[in-house]
Amino acid sequence: MSEVLPEPEVHAAIRPVETGGGVQRFGARQPLRLESGALLAPFEVAYKTYGRLNAERSNAVLICHALTGDQHVASPHPQSGKPGWWQRMVGPGRPLDPERYFLICSNVIGGCSGSTGPSSPDPKSGEAWGLRFPVITIADMVRAQAMLVASLGIDTLFAVVGGSMGGMQALQWAALYPERVFSAVVIASAARHSAQNIAFHEVGRQAVMADPDWQGGDYVKLGSRPEKGLAVARMAAHITYLSERALQRRFGRELQRDGLSWGFDADFQVESYLRHQGAAFVDRFDANSYLYITRAMDYFDLAAAHGGQLARAFAGSRTRFCVLSFTSDWLYPTEESRSIVRALNAAGAPASFLEIESDKGHDAFLLDEPVMDRAVSGFLEAAGEARGL
Amino acid sequence: MSEVLPEPEVHAAIRPVETGGGVQRFGARQPLRLESGALLAPFEVAYKTYGRLNAERSNAVLICHALTGDQHVASPHPQSGKPGWWQRMVGPGRPLDPERYFLICSNVIGGCSGSTGPSSPDPKSGEAWGLRFPVITIADMVRAQAMLVASLGIDTLFAVVGGSMGGMQALQWAALYPERVFSAVVIASAARHSAQNIAFHEVGRQAVMADPDWQGGDYVKLGSRPEKGLAVARMAAHITYLSERALQRRFGRELQRDGLSWGFDADFQVESYLRHQGAAFVDRFDANSYLYITRAMDYFDLAAAHGGQLARAFAGSRTRFCVLSFTSDWLYPTEESRSIVRALNAAGAPASFLEIESDKGHDAFLLDEPVMDRAVSGFLEAAGEARGL
Repeated sequence: MSEVLPEPEVHAAIRPVETGGGVQRFGARQPLRLESGALLAPFEVAYKTYGRLNAERSNAVLICHALTGDQHVASPHPQSGKPGWWQRMVGPGRPLDPERYFLICSNVIGGCSGSTGPSSPDPKSGEAWGLRFPVITIADMVRAQAMLVASLGIDTLFAVVGGSMGGMQALQWAALYPERVFSAVVIASAARHSAQNIAFHEVGRQAVMADPDWQGGDYVKLGSRPEKGLAVARMAAHITYLSERALQRRFGRELQRDGLSWGFDADFQVESYLRHQGAAFVDRFDANSYLYITRAMDYFDLAAAHGGQLARAFAGSRTRFCVLSFTSDWLYPTEESRSIVRALNAAGAPASFLEIESDKGHDAFLLDEPVMDRAVSGFLEAAGEARGL
Repeated sequence: MSEVLPEPEVHAAIRPVETGGGVQRFGARQPLRLESGALLAPFEVAYKTYGRLNAERSNAVLICHALTGDQHVASPHPQSGKPGWWQRMVGPGRPLDPERYFLICSNVIGGCSGSTGPSSPDPKSGEAWGLRFPVITIADMVRAQAMLVASLGIDTLFAVVGGSMGGMQALQWAALYPERVFSAVVIASAARHSAQNIAFHEVGRQAVMADPDWQGGDYVKLGSRPEKGLAVARMAAHITYLSERALQRRFGRELQRDGLSWGFDADFQVESYLRHQGAAFVDRFDANSYLYITRAMDYFDLAAAHGGQLARAFAGSRTRFCVLSFTSDWLYPTEESRSIVRALNAAGAPASFLEIESDKGHDAFLLDEPVMDRAVSGFLEAAGEARGL
């Protein structure tokens, strides 16, 4: 049924969409009050926008990125030139259509794509924060986004949309600011990190911190880069983003060359692929940001702040929710989504839920999944009617 | 039904069992002809035995250890003093009973517990082999074991038994020496490494090789130890040995202390547990052996040597097989065992298969699983009758 969708490339060519964005600076008088108790000030939020805010200011959609994402959701990355990370979901004729919505995507606090994070200069010393940067949480990311959204003159978001860590932010938005979120789309996500989730992240952090070039987090100041450690972290994480079946189908036991090397070169294509994933990642991501953002995800437990009862996080909420999961996602299995939906039901919040058959694993939310597109389109369509868009 | 088993501790106390073993040296005239084409000579195999060989020499059972195991299967480790790694399976009144069987367990070639491996001295230089040690395979391990078994005066093994990599060796034994293996017990194993299996091993190898103290594999010679890299490798691997559910049940999101640290210490118990697993492992295992043995496992593909048809590996085999898997083992899922059983069926080899309900993950084969005990006992009982034991 994907053929019923319009040809996105053609639309993009015919109808260029206004894009904007930049860096919003919050000064010493507008601190970000962090969950840890620390204050972050000044700080900056880098963002991109697509489309136009309507006169009623009712068509704004915040797109929240995942662990290693950035604000360049639907336009080429200014440095690498690579397409936006959700280009297939965001664009004219696509589910998140800039001709209908004013789309905002910001780099999370703690990130490394223009928003303030551990590689930013500490105002006190002028040198990179390193591990002196305060630990941040998903709620801190959301509070910074809320300040950005307010600075753009928007009271209420029509939707907050995200996959994986982006979905955590969407849930956190609805919990923190129920009156400012008309609808929320939560894809391949969870309301808390499981022991296995934490374990994989801890392996990644230990890999980074084991690299002597990490230098206690002061590598920027000292002019080194913990590339090997960060690459290992990425390799381990990358396996969790794919299903066993997807790996087997794509690589199986295929060799790089004719015959085995009888050594420790990359004999198998899957080894070469993983090494490439690791090497490419260190070019675009900061090691300390990796530590901070994985920590934020591990700390995430939406129920904990509400006496262990997730339903209470959504008590009295009138936000409409769309929750999507993928059958082969073993990082955030469907059961995590089901527990979110049960909580929403218990809270009386309107929720639609769909488990999508896919063998692509967790990364399915970034890949070609027409059923996901139709589910998001249909949900936003109905929400738009209710919102009078 | 575990109560039908006799009290093992009582039996062990009442009936001490003769143990033996040592190091079998194979000289320059008895080289090990490796799959790579290289010859390994001289070489040594360290082993332990329990019980006595009967007059007919028909009661010998070879126990094959897993990736990080050793020959100390049922007696305290001479250095650490820790109990044998399969003490709950091997002992008087247990499924592998030294009062009935002459049990042999040897350290694999490439290992680091007394058998020749990359940390052994290269006879040419007198210095540790390091990466100059030839790459070995599961079949090479088995050929070395076959030489050991022959040197003990045993023509035919009553059984070859192993879990995980030990199960691969049992399969390989049956394929290489069908007339010398009366029965084989293959637990939580596979006839080939999947793309995901290879991927996780590659992460571990990259973690080791990323450690500057690894020094191109010459750390023994140069007096360093790649402990951080090896610990990260172990942490990543350890997650794959446990089920998501087992981790959640045992650790959940339980904290080490009251409240979060707001830093990068081990806040969660699962982090502390993993760090401990990593730290304890480097005390007992050699980093290069880890590279070589994981490589051997990745190279394992029993069908490949038989035109891609696993059944041909067992053509004409009269070995009796017992294949066991665990429902929550995601490292070697039941489907891998099923494909072994299908091949055995196609080859006309007698095979019994049981998928055991367990939420303990891959490590279930090392843990308290009474159903596994009864399955192994029952299978060996019947095979023993057929063998006239």
